[in-house]
Amino acid sequence: MTSDAGAPVTVVVAPDAFKGTVTAAEAADAIAAGVRDVLGPDAHVVTVPVADGGEGSLDALLAAWGVDAREVDAPDAIGRPGRARYGVSSDGRTAVLELAQASGLPAVSDVALQPERSDTTGTGEVAARALDDGVDEVLLCLGGSASTDGGTGILRGLGARFLDAGGAEVAPGGGHLADIATVDLDGLHPRAREVTWRLAVDVTNPLCGERGSAAVFGPQKGADPATVARLDTGLGHLADVLADVTGDDVREVPGAGAAGGVPAGLVPVLGAELVPGATMIAEAAGLPAHLETADLVFTGEGRFDAQSIDGKVPSAVAGLVAGRCPVVVLAGGVDLDRVATRAAGITAALSIAPGPVALADLAPRTAARLRAVAADVTALVTGR
Amino acid sequence: MTSDAGAPVTVVVAPDAFKGTVTAAEAADAIAAGVRDVLGPDAHVVTVPVADGGEGSLDALLAAWGVDAREVDAPDAIGRPGRARYGVSSDGRTAVLELAQASGLPAVSDVALQPERSDTTGTGEVAARALDDGVDEVLLCLGGSASTDGGTGILRGLGARFLDAGGAEVAPGGGHLADIATVDLDGLHPRAREVTWRLAVDVTNPLCGERGSAAVFGPQKGADPATVARLDTGLGHLADVLADVTGDDVREVPGAGAAGGVPAGLVPVLGAELVPGATMIAEAAGLPAHLETADLVFTGEGRFDAQSIDGKVPSAVAGLVAGRCPVVVLAGGVDLDRVATRAAGITAALSIAPGPVALADLAPRTAARLRAVAADVTALVTGR
Repeated sequence: MTSDAGAPVTVVVAPDAFKGTVTAAEAADAIAAGVRDVLGPDAHVVTVPVADGGEGSLDALLAAWGVDAREVDAPDAIGRPGRARYGVSSDGRTAVLELAQASGLPAVSDVALQPERSDTTGTGEVAARALDDGVDEVLLCLGGSASTDGGTGILRGLGARFLDAGGAEVAPGGGHLADIATVDLDGLHPRAREVTWRLAVDVTNPLCGERGSAAVFGPQKGADPATVARLDTGLGHLADVLADVTGDDVREVPGAGAAGGVPAGLVPVLGAELVPGATMIAEAAGLPAHLETADLVFTGEGRFDAQSIDGKVPSAVAGLVAGRCPVVVLAGGVDLDRVATRAAGITAALSIAPGPVALADLAPRTAARLRAVAADVTALVTGR
Repeated sequence: MTSDAGAPVTVVVAPDAFKGTVTAAEAADAIAAGVRDVLGPDAHVVTVPVADGGEGSLDALLAAWGVDAREVDAPDAIGRPGRARYGVSSDGRTAVLELAQASGLPAVSDVALQPERSDTTGTGEVAARALDDGVDEVLLCLGGSASTDGGTGILRGLGARFLDAGGAEVAPGGGHLADIATVDLDGLHPRAREVTWRLAVDVTNPLCGERGSAAVFGPQKGADPATVARLDTGLGHLADVLADVTGDDVREVPGAGAAGGVPAGLVPVLGAELVPGATMIAEAAGLPAHLETADLVFTGEGRFDAQSIDGKVPSAVAGLVAGRCPVVVLAGGVDLDRVATRAAGITAALSIAPGPVALADLAPRTAARLRAVAADVTALVTGR
């Protein structure tokens, strides 16, 4: 109500991107403008662009950290020269990498897809650069990969050698995983096992089988049924070999099938942790500390529906707020009933549509409408 | 904010109809359901359906008063037998009539329009019945009339006689106004000049001239240019005659041109007061008393735009609240910027559109969406 109108108010604005219309940073700025329309230009408004661990995660963290991207040479998924961007937090402690930067599918879609050859070595080389930078923590956003290599490329890029029964080095790519007899970690980057590895995963697929990485994601990477079968066998074999070496078996870990099975290599060898992407990005962006003093929290995304409360940005933000203040979702479209919305810790979920409107007409007005609805919500919550 | 969560909350719900989708009463019930979704089934929610003095005003007051319509015989605008509904408040003190009931254009559109013959006698007969019922106040909603008779028909229906220079009674209809030399009020209903007459007017047109009743509204009633000229002259003449008799000249009164110039007769003869329709209906519905204890007020209409803050329901409700608590407009479409919205005393104006959607798809979901957005707003304002 209006009883405490006049008291200082802290508003935290932590949206995802509205895909195809505004970035997370642009959305945050628009919402913040609406808040200031009501509370005045000196209002305490903190913008923390967030992402779900997929596309846009690097840019969201660069914006949240207020730093520029670093760009380095790194081979693409089929070994051709390329460039990749990554970020290091302003305190120098955390690096964020997107697998899709160096090892993504689009960069190799100019030629026939090579599902057995493709690997993640480029991402490993970027990670090595981040370790050279001195970070204590590497956040790796999975998703968008061209490969099904069980993360062997990343380990290779960090200095590991995968050897066959004769002691010869196995060729890169998922098609050769079945030849691996053991892994030589002597050449591994000296800091690779010292730092914390967190993998942003938004699927629960296991490594192998019907719901496994090769079966579910292989076809879109160019794998025909016979190739899927070979890749699936290879991933299982890799898991067995690494379980022997490390004692850590990832076969049944939910999410191990993400990004061509990257967790299969990185969990046992590097002790990598699988985390929901939205929570990972929100924490890396410093959201939890800002939320401690928040009186009102805005989040949002292009479309708020049942998926949104299953590990996407709005539910991750609401989870971090944990009921201490109102959490408002602004979305292009809202398609979730109130009971489910409230159960996710979200106070209200409002569309920015000003009335009956076509998507093509609404999209260009996204920032303006975010500002308008954010102002209305701020007025309602604060009584100003 | 949430500081007084737990305190009793009174919510007043006073929407207009969402034309073509839900009545004011249905809209109020839907919003109230949303409020109760948050505050619980025993929440103190008062529903006061409102209207702007046009179509739907009678039904809104019947719903607000909790009474049934009364229906009586009354001639239509060209003198054919018909029926008309009106309402009397549960305390018996106030009657509400819609001019369009007995004297509306649609009822006479089955034959060639007769702009000079059409009159409002039927409405006068309904008013006489209301006076017989013992009311102290007659609310007459103008608009939708078939006639341009300067209200002479209403006065006729109440017992007045309009006489020509020879003392003979002048025929009904706007075409004969120029023949009127004087008015004989001896037969006027004995209570006609004792009760309070309030005319709901939502136009500012003067009686005569370029912006006058005949020129602006005559054509849609079937008047060609020559007829418009005759009607305009007749209205001016009537005003002059009545000014001579009563000392009250309505020629330049804003709104005197409403409904074929009904105020021309009713202002000087009956002392009728012209009032904005939305305010009149809101007051008659008892809204001011309910607002005294309100912590949150909902209003709404199908489309909230610049017209809405010019005497329509949302601005009328906000005017009665006068800043004592938040006023929230829920609308099918919102097309008014925040500055203008706030200037009208409205805290927030939200669309019920859940995202990009066609009007034809949104309309059937009006009640459900009103409920959903009302719940969200209630949660935001009350911190529940």
